[in-house]
Amino acid sequence: MINTNTTLTIATPGPGLVEVTDEVSNWVAGQAVANGLLTLFIRHTSASLTIQENADPDVQADLLAFFRHLVPEGAGYRHDAEGPDDMPAHIKAALTQTSLSIPIMGGRLALGTWQGIYVFEHRARPHRREVALNVVG
Amino acid sequence: MINTNTTLTIATPGPGLVEVTDEVSNWVAGQAVANGLLTLFIRHTSASLTIQENADPDVQADLLAFFRHLVPEGAGYRHDAEGPDDMPAHIKAALTQTSLSIPIMGGRLALGTWQGIYVFEHRARPHRREVALNVVG
Amino acid sequence: MINTNTTLTIATPGPGLVEVTDEVSNWVAGQAVANGLLTLFIRHTSASLTIQENADPDVQADLLAFFRHLVPEGAGYRHDAEGPDDMPAHIKAALTQTSLSIPIMGGRLALGTWQGIYVFEHRARPHRREVALNVVG
Repeated sequence: MINTNTTLTIATPGPGLVEVTDEVSNWVAGQAVANGLLTLFIRHTSASLTIQENADPDVQADLLAFFRHLVPEGAGYRHDAEGPDDMPAHIKAALTQTSLSIPIMGGRLALGTWQGIYVFEHRARPHRREVALNVVG
Repeated sequence: MINTNTTLTIATPGPGLVEVTDEVSNWVAGQAVANGLLTLFIRHTSASLTIQENADPDVQADLLAFFRHLVPEGAGYRHDAEGPDDMPAHIKAALTQTSLSIPIMGGRLALGTWQGIYVFEHRARPHRREVALNVVG
Repeated sequence: MINTNTTLTIATPGPGLVEVTDEVSNWVAGQAVANGLLTLFIRHTSASLTIQENADPDVQADLLAFFRHLVPEGAGYRHDAEGPDDMPAHIKAALTQTSLSIPIMGGRLALGTWQGIYVFEHRARPHRREVALNVVG
């Protein structure tokens, strides 16, 4: 069996979803695993991972608006030394995913037709985010 | 080591939780893995996975009511071409799980006494949902 | 390849986050796996797992306050035989994680600098919580 790791670095321009499906799929294809499991893990607590529809960009805008409304800035957080967007970012990360696992079947990720893999940036400013990947298969 | 995949197709009757514990456990038992890891991955962005109490059906009713209230229809979403239940479905999927991993110990899933595995349908109409499974062990 | 399981028992003093990073990391170190994957799975539906910042304790206090506000007690739940904190606990568990997977790189968990692994207790009274661990690598 194969067991390999790598780390991707993803530049984010501020709040929102950055699609990483191609970058992840290409790395998986290079491992030549017919059947197995891919795991993604984001090494941060103010950005997260999500799988969402990759067809209509409005889905991403609505998702962003929902989380901005659900977890408002300036809600009397104790943890505010790093700015008003910091504690909301931690909460949004807790409500979404730090890790995701996707079976590999027939050499490809078993993603559905409309599924894309996204880094979900919750901080106001641009960041560089590290996503650790593992393939077993 | 064993490394196997399959895909289950689950019929959902509309919004709510459909238990798949038996179907999943039976497939795992057939793999004859003493110790290892099961991963489930739902190939959709408007349905999701969750592990919940399987004893009192009221838990499912309360959970459904909570999410209906938290993510209301008709909240001015941009993405509405597929109906008023569509964007709330994507948001509810983002708030729950697309993948779940459960250790296998002594040939059985390490589920707690009251834990059941559920497909969480977020769309108003019935659907057929695909869940990809992987066992390594 | 190595494929090992264990179960940790974590005492929780009531609502809040209990860090288990050291306990988990020490067990992983003992498996002598250079590269692979750790999976954690909590065997309960009224407590969950989360990865959060481990530097400022205020983050935990704010996170707890957010979830208490988002999922209030006494909101007319049907499932209330086990007390007013029971159904909110199930909902909070559904909104956070039952399983987490973390790549192992160079013999260590690929956690980011500020990431800690926590058991998130949602019940009012102290509990003993079981977390099943699996390492493949």
